[in-house]
Amino acid sequence: MAVGLISLPPLSPVPGVRLGTACAGIKKPGRRDLVVIELCEGASCVAVFTRNAFCAAPVVVAKRHLAKAVPRYLLINTGNANAGTGERGMQDAEACCEALAASAKVVSHQVLPFSTGVIGEPLPVTTLITALPAAHGALTAEGWADAAHGIMTTDTVAKGVSRQIEIAGQAITVTGIAKGAGMIRPDMATMLAFIATDAKVAAPLLQQCLNTAAQASFNCITIDGDTSTNDACVLMATGRSALPEIVSVESPALASLSQAITEVCVALAQAIVRDGEGATKFITIEVRGGADEEECRRAAYAVAHSPLVKTAFFASDPNWGRILAAVGRAGITNLDVARVKIFLDEVCIVANGGRAHDYEEKQGREVMARQEITVRIELGRGNHQAQLWTCDFSYDYVRINAEYRT
Amino acid sequence: MAVGLISLPPLSPVPGVRLGTACAGIKKPGRRDLVVIELCEGASCVAVFTRNAFCAAPVVVAKRHLAKAVPRYLLINTGNANAGTGERGMQDAEACCEALAASAKVVSHQVLPFSTGVIGEPLPVTTLITALPAAHGALTAEGWADAAHGIMTTDTVAKGVSRQIEIAGQAITVTGIAKGAGMIRPDMATMLAFIATDAKVAAPLLQQCLNTAAQASFNCITIDGDTSTNDACVLMATGRSALPEIVSVESPALASLSQAITEVCVALAQAIVRDGEGATKFITIEVRGGADEEECRRAAYAVAHSPLVKTAFFASDPNWGRILAAVGRAGITNLDVARVKIFLDEVCIVANGGRAHDYEEKQGREVMARQEITVRIELGRGNHQAQLWTCDFSYDYVRINAEYRT
Repeated sequence: MAVGLISLPPLSPVPGVRLGTACAGIKKPGRRDLVVIELCEGASCVAVFTRNAFCAAPVVVAKRHLAKAVPRYLLINTGNANAGTGERGMQDAEACCEALAASAKVVSHQVLPFSTGVIGEPLPVTTLITALPAAHGALTAEGWADAAHGIMTTDTVAKGVSRQIEIAGQAITVTGIAKGAGMIRPDMATMLAFIATDAKVAAPLLQQCLNTAAQASFNCITIDGDTSTNDACVLMATGRSALPEIVSVESPALASLSQAITEVCVALAQAIVRDGEGATKFITIEVRGGADEEECRRAAYAVAHSPLVKTAFFASDPNWGRILAAVGRAGITNLDVARVKIFLDEVCIVANGGRAHDYEEKQGREVMARQEITVRIELGRGNHQAQLWTCDFSYDYVRINAEYRT
Repeated sequence: MAVGLISLPPLSPVPGVRLGTACAGIKKPGRRDLVVIELCEGASCVAVFTRNAFCAAPVVVAKRHLAKAVPRYLLINTGNANAGTGERGMQDAEACCEALAASAKVVSHQVLPFSTGVIGEPLPVTTLITALPAAHGALTAEGWADAAHGIMTTDTVAKGVSRQIEIAGQAITVTGIAKGAGMIRPDMATMLAFIATDAKVAAPLLQQCLNTAAQASFNCITIDGDTSTNDACVLMATGRSALPEIVSVESPALASLSQAITEVCVALAQAIVRDGEGATKFITIEVRGGADEEECRRAAYAVAHSPLVKTAFFASDPNWGRILAAVGRAGITNLDVARVKIFLDEVCIVANGGRAHDYEEKQGREVMARQEITVRIELGRGNHQAQLWTCDFSYDYVRINAEYRT
């Protein structure tokens, strides 16, 4: 039911990055559930992680390893999140890193672990390690599409995107893949996303690119308001292009690269929402005219998380009263409701604290029948704004999450 | 599908209060949708209302009237919330009050209007006024049960409760009715609740009783996190019992009365959750050991509003990882996850940041099969606590809210 998602587009290899997948049988036999990503020597690698206090063991271990060494390998499994597994979870994540490090002849700090799937069950370490040689042996620069499939859980389509740009006459590639369809309200990055470029950028500047991109993409989506314990987003720069190293925070090259990275992240973030569990509609929520960005985001999230708004979108019902009620409870101090306007695409539905004078139900029905809809809320208090992407709430969301572990 | 709700218990009349209902045909013909409550002269009447910035026209008008006079009549309609209706909505609410005031020979400020139903459609004033004489003519002290039916919208059962207590040797009655099943996260009071006692209490002390009761009842429930535009809770004291007027804030009589009122409100609030749209489970969420009450409430709401937790309860799936993830994203500063414990009824499921040592899935399944379940979360940070009541999230919630206006 992914909204407006076509099949995975061609993903351009990034010189310096190879990917291999295998079927380890972690949750179900016969599906790709183990991915190894290899990064060339001399590359930079940065990441952002979930802010959930119960962050998963692989998140803890990945942070620890990142602080000690420049990564050479990312090891990703689906089917088991290794979250809520306490001290044993840490040991299990370390054991997997050690196994890959041994066969790849690096130290285990150069391996970052990532897990996604069911929370609270012990990681099947033996199963995973047994399948490692197959994934490691399959490493290829052409492996992006297979890896995009290999990191899926409840996703119905694999998600990936490439951008080719030219900086100072040199071709630069940015390619990324992501997974996620539920437990999505990233507070840093989404469930899992891996992005690479062949530009050469030192870690501090690369981190700045990633922070900018995540803020404008993964931190602007919500499917169900539930922030995952395993969110992680990794950005790698191999330096294998002919472009000289980007060293200045003010260089036009950095601006161009940063923009391309943001575009890739926005496309991946939107793909996650389009594939939201049970989603039948892709909704953009724009809030303008706020006194600050924070209140704009608060209003946008109140609307995006309202089960009543989400079920109305599912039903294609222009029940704008629910949108108005959600804005009203967003906790905006001294909101003057007489100044608020709400639009469904081009149609003004609310003005002066009530139904817009010219609004007719027929117009609302026409907009609601669309698969992609923008809700624009004008608060009339200032010049700040915020934007979110979300989806509707259907029978299938309930079915998927009621049956998830069966 | 109301969880553990039996049919309406016998409701004791409250001397000084009469109730009448009629079928006005506001939304559907042939159902009771109009209720008049008459309060004797000399009574006290206080109320609490929604904090939604887009509060409905009847809420604005009721507040205005309450400030000007002691109410003699409450006029309640279902089928139309008269919310998001701007200036016209105010005029419509006033017109209905004036019509009742004229036939009852009081001034219109002595009538408080209440509306519940679809947001954003003009109130059908003529339809409503035409049916007023029938409701007014039906006034009877025995009218509580009919009124409980007359204020229902998506409720599947009528909700009411009576308590008989003795204060200083005198019998005192407290009777209340309420409605609400969706758009329920009261931020003051629930959708609509009307409670009366025959004790004699002046308005300031009565307001104190109501604030205490609402804080411990309607402000501790959530069905879908959506605060209504029309929430209102009214408490009336007729003074028709033989008990002398309660005048001191420190009198034992006030304490006894306040407790009875709180008990009635808790029973009504729980009834609303038990009848939550699509509910199949009644969930109590207790958070203990917090550094302050606010963080306990934040953790409780994060769990209560999580669609993933709610669908797991619907599926009777002891997916405790989702509870843990919700606590982790509740925004509690410096939460030490190693100190958090989570219980499903008597079973400890989480300790030391992960699955409790002795926990077996079978135990979780046993608890989850129950219709009424308590989730206890111990934060291990202090001595504060909070408690909420909520329900699960089922196919029927989506169905009810997708089909609401059709």
